[in-house]
Amino acid sequence: VGLRVAIVATGHEVVRGTTPDANSPWLARASTEAGARVTSARVVGDDERDVARAIDDAVAEADAVLVTGGLGPTEDDRTRAALAVVAGVDVAFDAQAWALVEAFFRRAAQEPAPMQRRQATLPRGSTPLPNSQGTAPGVLLRVRGVDVFLLPGPPREMRAVFREEALPRLVATGRLDPTAVRVLWTAGVPESEIARSIEDVMAAPEPVVGTHPDEGEVAVRILARGADAAARGDACVAEIRRRLGAHVVSDVEDVRVQHAVVAALRERRRVVTTAESITGGLVARMLVEVPGSSDVFRGGFVTYSDEWKRDLLGVPAALLESKGAVSAEVAEAMATGALERARCDYAVSTTGVAGPGPDARGAAEGTVFIGWASRDGGRGTLPLRFAVSRIAVQRRAAVRALDLLRRRLLGLPG
Amino acid sequence: VGLRVAIVATGHEVVRGTTPDANSPWLARASTEAGARVTSARVVGDDERDVARAIDDAVAEADAVLVTGGLGPTEDDRTRAALAVVAGVDVAFDAQAWALVEAFFRRAAQEPAPMQRRQATLPRGSTPLPNSQGTAPGVLLRVRGVDVFLLPGPPREMRAVFREEALPRLVATGRLDPTAVRVLWTAGVPESEIARSIEDVMAAPEPVVGTHPDEGEVAVRILARGADAAARGDACVAEIRRRLGAHVVSDVEDVRVQHAVVAALRERRRVVTTAESITGGLVARMLVEVPGSSDVFRGGFVTYSDEWKRDLLGVPAALLESKGAVSAEVAEAMATGALERARCDYAVSTTGVAGPGPDARGAAEGTVFIGWASRDGGRGTLPLRFAVSRIAVQRRAAVRALDLLRRRLLGLPG
Repeated sequence: VGLRVAIVATGHEVVRGTTPDANSPWLARASTEAGARVTSARVVGDDERDVARAIDDAVAEADAVLVTGGLGPTEDDRTRAALAVVAGVDVAFDAQAWALVEAFFRRAAQEPAPMQRRQATLPRGSTPLPNSQGTAPGVLLRVRGVDVFLLPGPPREMRAVFREEALPRLVATGRLDPTAVRVLWTAGVPESEIARSIEDVMAAPEPVVGTHPDEGEVAVRILARGADAAARGDACVAEIRRRLGAHVVSDVEDVRVQHAVVAALRERRRVVTTAESITGGLVARMLVEVPGSSDVFRGGFVTYSDEWKRDLLGVPAALLESKGAVSAEVAEAMATGALERARCDYAVSTTGVAGPGPDARGAAEGTVFIGWASRDGGRGTLPLRFAVSRIAVQRRAAVRALDLLRRRLLGLPG
Repeated sequence: VGLRVAIVATGHEVVRGTTPDANSPWLARASTEAGARVTSARVVGDDERDVARAIDDAVAEADAVLVTGGLGPTEDDRTRAALAVVAGVDVAFDAQAWALVEAFFRRAAQEPAPMQRRQATLPRGSTPLPNSQGTAPGVLLRVRGVDVFLLPGPPREMRAVFREEALPRLVATGRLDPTAVRVLWTAGVPESEIARSIEDVMAAPEPVVGTHPDEGEVAVRILARGADAAARGDACVAEIRRRLGAHVVSDVEDVRVQHAVVAALRERRRVVTTAESITGGLVARMLVEVPGSSDVFRGGFVTYSDEWKRDLLGVPAALLESKGAVSAEVAEAMATGALERARCDYAVSTTGVAGPGPDARGAAEGTVFIGWASRDGGRGTLPLRFAVSRIAVQRRAAVRALDLLRRRLLGLPG
């Protein structure tokens, strides 16, 4: 069944739910993608007894255990001592670990404080693991035939020690399954529709396919395992692309709709502007999240009131009066007004009712119109209706505005 | 030591790290705030054996166990069967549970499908728990003297069954400690400075005080337990307020800097506008997140390029040339220009270098200037420097812009 990995995260604030534990999901994903099978992830407080119990349980169920947190130099940092209890050994000052601590301080032209010696006091028989990002060395100790890795709590340090020290040792067991992980980001359709389009693909036992909504976009994730994992993962991606067509934004984890839009604009040397009411600046903000966006986005308008729509964008007062600000006509007039004033190639606009409750003219909460206009005379609107709360309506409207622009730029339907 | 609670979450996608588990942190926090001591939280896949092992371990360490997920009507929903294994009983169709399923469908004017009978097939001896938000009844079974609660996976249903069914039973044990939870949101100072100001308060064993950075603001959380918890929590809040003074934005979990600004503007019947470069619309977007913001925010300017700053805000070309767009002078000119054009009471502006890398004139990545202007002639700028990556620089700059406005509105220093 391949290599089984169990994960343990320590920290009172995590177990009380006040600080989210980002380490365990990251380790779970990294281990899965490397070809391990994650049996469980546990969160416990900083008490030595709780940590020891969690490590003990984890050792009983897995071939390797990844523990995060509690490697600092203070009294609260009990993970090393807990591991010693589980292994039935005592802790002792480790000259090799101390050399790692000293080396880290030397690189920063500093001296370690005496309390730092605690970070070099390890369960007897451990191997200290270099930490390229911080003072706390990692620790490896074999307990009842299971490799237990202690990793530092700060995420950057945890990731470095995992990648540089733990992962190569997991690979060296020869027991990791060949694994292929793929993602397709989609925009413009709800998760339920995506799931319906690929129902049979999702129902197949292999590869494992799941849909994951995130801030108005939906990721389709593919996990293939065993011989030919890469080929089967790629075949699955091709099949899903065939079904979803224009809805697919990217096949790269960090490339979302705003990145796709900025890339498409840069390739075509086109410049866009924004005219936002319901999204209040979010479309512009998503564009400027992307490095290099200043080549394709020079500025935009946030016109929340009727007066601003009239004065800044030139939306006719009569139109605002007759159709209301939340209308397809006003969405289009906002886009054409922005296009003319900004002398851009494309403009995209948003208007709608975020709620709570309907607007003064009775347009229902969740009603949204996206508008667009292009210098070559293209124009259009997209009416939408969302049944989610205020901030989620704003977010989804912004994603749909960017997705509409993406489709126009790439000549795609929808 | 009070009532010990252990948490178990189930689901393959959670244990693989592809879907975040929001249920466990919520339950950890709700249990802690109710006065329980959370011993651990575990995540396991959907396999019956893994779920059974996790429940078994949890029963060994706690007085009550909260399990989420796996109560649906499909083959994959194995939590009920896993609990039966742990208890050493078989599963059987439960007429009382079926009545709950039927009642839920009747309220929606529907009939349950035959597969729904699975949701009424429980470990023998269980008590079915009504679920006001969905079809899956919760389950309560006492195992080796420990109350094991099975809660549905969808968060809304989970919260309802916890609040309406599990929590009253935990309270009825009489073993929950009196507990007071308080929060102070702060803005305008880094976490390290907050921590230094209240170092001795944080070092005291009681109440437990922690700092929690979140998107450019920092929460100080206070947890007091035992007799007089509320009074000691309040005294601690008063002491921290005394130390942190103007940095405190609110003492309500959902009231952040943008809410404080909108409330202050509404009270004073003042209207604000925004002139954003580095934040690219984020300041405006944060304002419109707040219901009722249309009373105090009518529109804003996103002026990312020099030309837009000149054309839309009237920043003198000579100033842009001599000082560069990333300068205190331009920040102030953006704010005064926006104030005049928008005929508002206040304007706030942002300019800076988000990176990666310095700007064309050599201003370093992370350099930010906030500007402000008021109708009564007030003006000023705030120079900042952030050592974080692009999106975090943008976010922190937006928080500082709103916080500057908050301080000017309330007549606070800084």
